[in-house]
Amino acid sequence: MKTFNVGVVGMGTVGAGVVKILLGKNSPLKEKLGCIPLLKGVADRNPGAKNRVDLPSEILYTDDAKVLLHNPDIQVIAELIGGVHPAKEIIMQALESGKDVVTANKMLLALHGSELFKKARQCGKSISFEASVGGGIPVIAAVRDGLIANRIDSIFGIVNGTTNYILTKMTKENVKYSDALAEAQRMGYAEKDPSMDVDGIDSSHKLAILARIGFGTDFDYKQIYCEGISTIDLSDIRYAHELGYTLKLLAVAKRTEDYIELRVHPTLLPNDHPLSTVNGVFNAICIHGDAVGETMLYGKGAGQMPTASAVVADLVDVGLGRADITFRAMKTFSGNCECIPIADILQIQTRYYLRFTVVDKPGVLAKISGILGNYHISIASVIQHESKENGNVPLIMMTHSAEEGNLQKALAEIKRLDVIKDSTRFLRVEE
Amino acid sequence: MKTFNVGVVGMGTVGAGVVKILLGKNSPLKEKLGCIPLLKGVADRNPGAKNRVDLPSEILYTDDAKVLLHNPDIQVIAELIGGVHPAKEIIMQALESGKDVVTANKMLLALHGSELFKKARQCGKSISFEASVGGGIPVIAAVRDGLIANRIDSIFGIVNGTTNYILTKMTKENVKYSDALAEAQRMGYAEKDPSMDVDGIDSSHKLAILARIGFGTDFDYKQIYCEGISTIDLSDIRYAHELGYTLKLLAVAKRTEDYIELRVHPTLLPNDHPLSTVNGVFNAICIHGDAVGETMLYGKGAGQMPTASAVVADLVDVGLGRADITFRAMKTFSGNCECIPIADILQIQTRYYLRFTVVDKPGVLAKISGILGNYHISIASVIQHESKENGNVPLIMMTHSAEEGNLQKALAEIKRLDVIKDSTRFLRVEE
Repeated sequence: MKTFNVGVVGMGTVGAGVVKILLGKNSPLKEKLGCIPLLKGVADRNPGAKNRVDLPSEILYTDDAKVLLHNPDIQVIAELIGGVHPAKEIIMQALESGKDVVTANKMLLALHGSELFKKARQCGKSISFEASVGGGIPVIAAVRDGLIANRIDSIFGIVNGTTNYILTKMTKENVKYSDALAEAQRMGYAEKDPSMDVDGIDSSHKLAILARIGFGTDFDYKQIYCEGISTIDLSDIRYAHELGYTLKLLAVAKRTEDYIELRVHPTLLPNDHPLSTVNGVFNAICIHGDAVGETMLYGKGAGQMPTASAVVADLVDVGLGRADITFRAMKTFSGNCECIPIADILQIQTRYYLRFTVVDKPGVLAKISGILGNYHISIASVIQHESKENGNVPLIMMTHSAEEGNLQKALAEIKRLDVIKDSTRFLRVEE
Repeated sequence: MKTFNVGVVGMGTVGAGVVKILLGKNSPLKEKLGCIPLLKGVADRNPGAKNRVDLPSEILYTDDAKVLLHNPDIQVIAELIGGVHPAKEIIMQALESGKDVVTANKMLLALHGSELFKKARQCGKSISFEASVGGGIPVIAAVRDGLIANRIDSIFGIVNGTTNYILTKMTKENVKYSDALAEAQRMGYAEKDPSMDVDGIDSSHKLAILARIGFGTDFDYKQIYCEGISTIDLSDIRYAHELGYTLKLLAVAKRTEDYIELRVHPTLLPNDHPLSTVNGVFNAICIHGDAVGETMLYGKGAGQMPTASAVVADLVDVGLGRADITFRAMKTFSGNCECIPIADILQIQTRYYLRFTVVDKPGVLAKISGILGNYHISIASVIQHESKENGNVPLIMMTHSAEEGNLQKALAEIKRLDVIKDSTRFLRVEE
C-alpha cells in the first residue's frame, strides 16, 4: 500500500467507528496487509465529539474541516457528516485539493452524484461510497465489480433497517404502526422525526445509487416513485399472510426493453422469497443478472461498526490504488452515461393486492370483478370473511399481473359504486 | 483497461460460458467499461469441444494448451479444465511464461494453493479464483476486500448445490436419499459417480479456500473434518423438523481463541436461520466479522453462466490491474501466513441432535440421560413417539452445548446398554 494519510470529517456515530478501527490495536488490517491506513486528523464542528474516542495526541483534532482539506499530508478525506451541506462543499474542496474521497453519504450522492463524480474526474481523483448503501454489506462492489460481466436486469431489496424493524414488529407481534414506530424510536432505530425513513426517502436515495451503478444510467432522483409505510394497516399484513405473502418496504429497480422502473413502496413478497425472512434492522438486496441469475446479499444495513467496516474497506481500496483504477475505468462515473427513460408508475406491470370495504349484500363481488375485467385485470384469489359489525366487510383480492394505469382507472370507477365504503387499499407484489 | 488478451484452456461447460460472454454482441462489459477482454485463443484436448460455441476464425483453437502458454500475445490464461493434473502444470507454466492466471479450480487450490501462490509471487504474476467458490456469488472478493476491516470470526454455508438439491428434495418431498440422488443425476446436477459431492469433498475444497482467505492461515487440506450426506435417514429430517430445525450440508470454519475449526458435515439449523431457506441448487455463505456482524451472500453456486460470470469478473480485474495489486498486497497469498492450529473434531463445542433406537420399557430415558449427565451433557428437549412395531422406538434428544469428545465417550458407553438397539445417530447443530 502506498503511504497515505486519512482525514476524517465528522466524528458522529460512523466517524467514531472508523477512528476506532484505524486506531485499533491488533488491527486485522495489519494482519492481512502488513499495514494500515494512517489516521492523520479528525474534524468535527462539535468540540464534544472529540470525547467519543480516546484520540492520541499526535492525531490532529479541529473544529474546522478546512484544516484537514488544506493539509498536504492528507491524501484521502472520509466525509462522514451526512446531509447535503456542507458535505458537498467539503467533498468538492477535498477533490480540488487533490485528495481522494470516501463517503457514506447516500443523500448527497442521490441528489448530486453526477456533479461530484464529474468534479472527481476533472481533478483526477476518486470517490468511493460502499458505505452509502447496505451498511457493511459489500453491495456496491458486488454490483460494480463482482457482477460486471452481467447485464443487470433488476436490483431490489430492503435497504432501510428502521422501516424493516417496524414492519417486522407489526408482522410478528401484531402491533399497530404507531406503537411499532414508538418502539423503534425508543430503541434508537428511528429518529424523533422519522419521515426520512418511514416515508421511503432514505430507501429512494439508496435506490438511486444502486440503479446508477447497476444500469449505468443517470437520472433525476425525483423521478423515483416513493411511497412510505406510515399508512400501513395491520389488517393488510394479516390478510396478506393468509394469502401466503409478507409485507416489506422494497426499493425496486428494473430494466425492461424500453425503460427503467424505479420505485420505493410497501410490497408483498411470497413467504418463501428470500427477502421475506429478512427481519428486524437487517437489509438484503437481490440482484438479478443475465449470467449469474438471482443473487442476494444480506447483513446489517446501518449501525456504527457495520458502516465503519465499509468505509475502511474503501480507504484500503484508495490506499492500494484500486479505487482510482475503478473510478477511471467505469463509464458510470464519467458523467457520460446513457440516459434510459424512467417509467411512470402508471406504466408498471405487476400483481396487486386489493382490499375493498364493501356492504355485505349480494352482487358486490360481481360488480367489482366486472369493472376489473373491463380493464383487463383478472383475479387470482379472493378472501371474504363474515361481517362482524355494521354490515361492512373487507373484501380481499389478489390479481394477476396488470398495468397500474388500468388498475387505477378501475379503482376510480369502483370507488363510485354505492356498495363501496371507505377507501380501497392496494399493495404491489414482487415474485 | 490495458490491452490484454485471454487464452482459455478447457472448453467444457464453464469454458464455453466464458467464451460466450467474451464473444457476445452488445456485451455489458462494453457498455460499462468501453472495452472487453479480448479472446485470443482456446485450447481443449477434445477436438469436438470446438463445436460448443461458434468460434470466429480469428480465434486460435488448439488441442495443445502449450500453444497458448507460449503465445506472447496472450497476457492471461483462464484455466477451466478442473482437477489437479494437468491443470497444475498448465498454471505453473502460464506463470513462468509471465501470464496472469484466472481459475475456477477449487480442488487444485485446496490441495496446492500455497505452492501455486508462491510460484505466482516469484513470477510477479497473480492468480484470481472468484469462480472457485460459490459460482457467480462474489464471495471471495467480499471476504478478501469488502470485509477487509474485519477480524473474521466464522464463515459457514452451503457451498455445494448438488447435495443441497438432494437434501431439499428429501425435506420437501419426503423422498429417500437414493431416490433424491437418482433424480439429481437425471437432472444433471449430480455426476454418475457422485462421491465428490455427496461425501462432502467438494465442500471441503471450497472451505479450504474460504478459510485461507478469511483467516489468513495456511493448513493441510486433509485436516478438514469431512462427513457427507449419504447415510442421512429421512426420519432424522422429519424429527429435526418437529424440533424446529432444517438439515443442510454445511461447510464450517470458525476461529476461537486457540484454534480454527474446519469441518464439513450434515448440520441442523433453526428453521428461521437464513440458511434454512436456501433450497435446491442455490448456495449461500454466512460470514461473521467483528465489525460488520452477520452477513450472507446467496446465489447459484454452479452452472455454466453463473461460474462464467465470476471468471470474467476476474479477467476484468486482471485487465484493469486490480488483481495484481490485490495479489501483491494480501499476506494470505505470500506463503508466509500464520499457521493457526486446526481443532480436532473431538475438541469442538456444539449442540447435538441424538437419535437412539431403544427398547420400549421403563427406565430407558433415565439410563441414557444419566450417562449423558456424567459427561456434562445436558438435554434441551426430547421426543419419544409410541412404538409401532417389535417394541423398539426412536428416542430423539436435543442437547445443550457440549464437547464432542465427551459426547463420543458418552455414546460409546450408552451403546453398551442392553436397552439400545441399532446404532445411534447424531447430528451437529449451528445456531
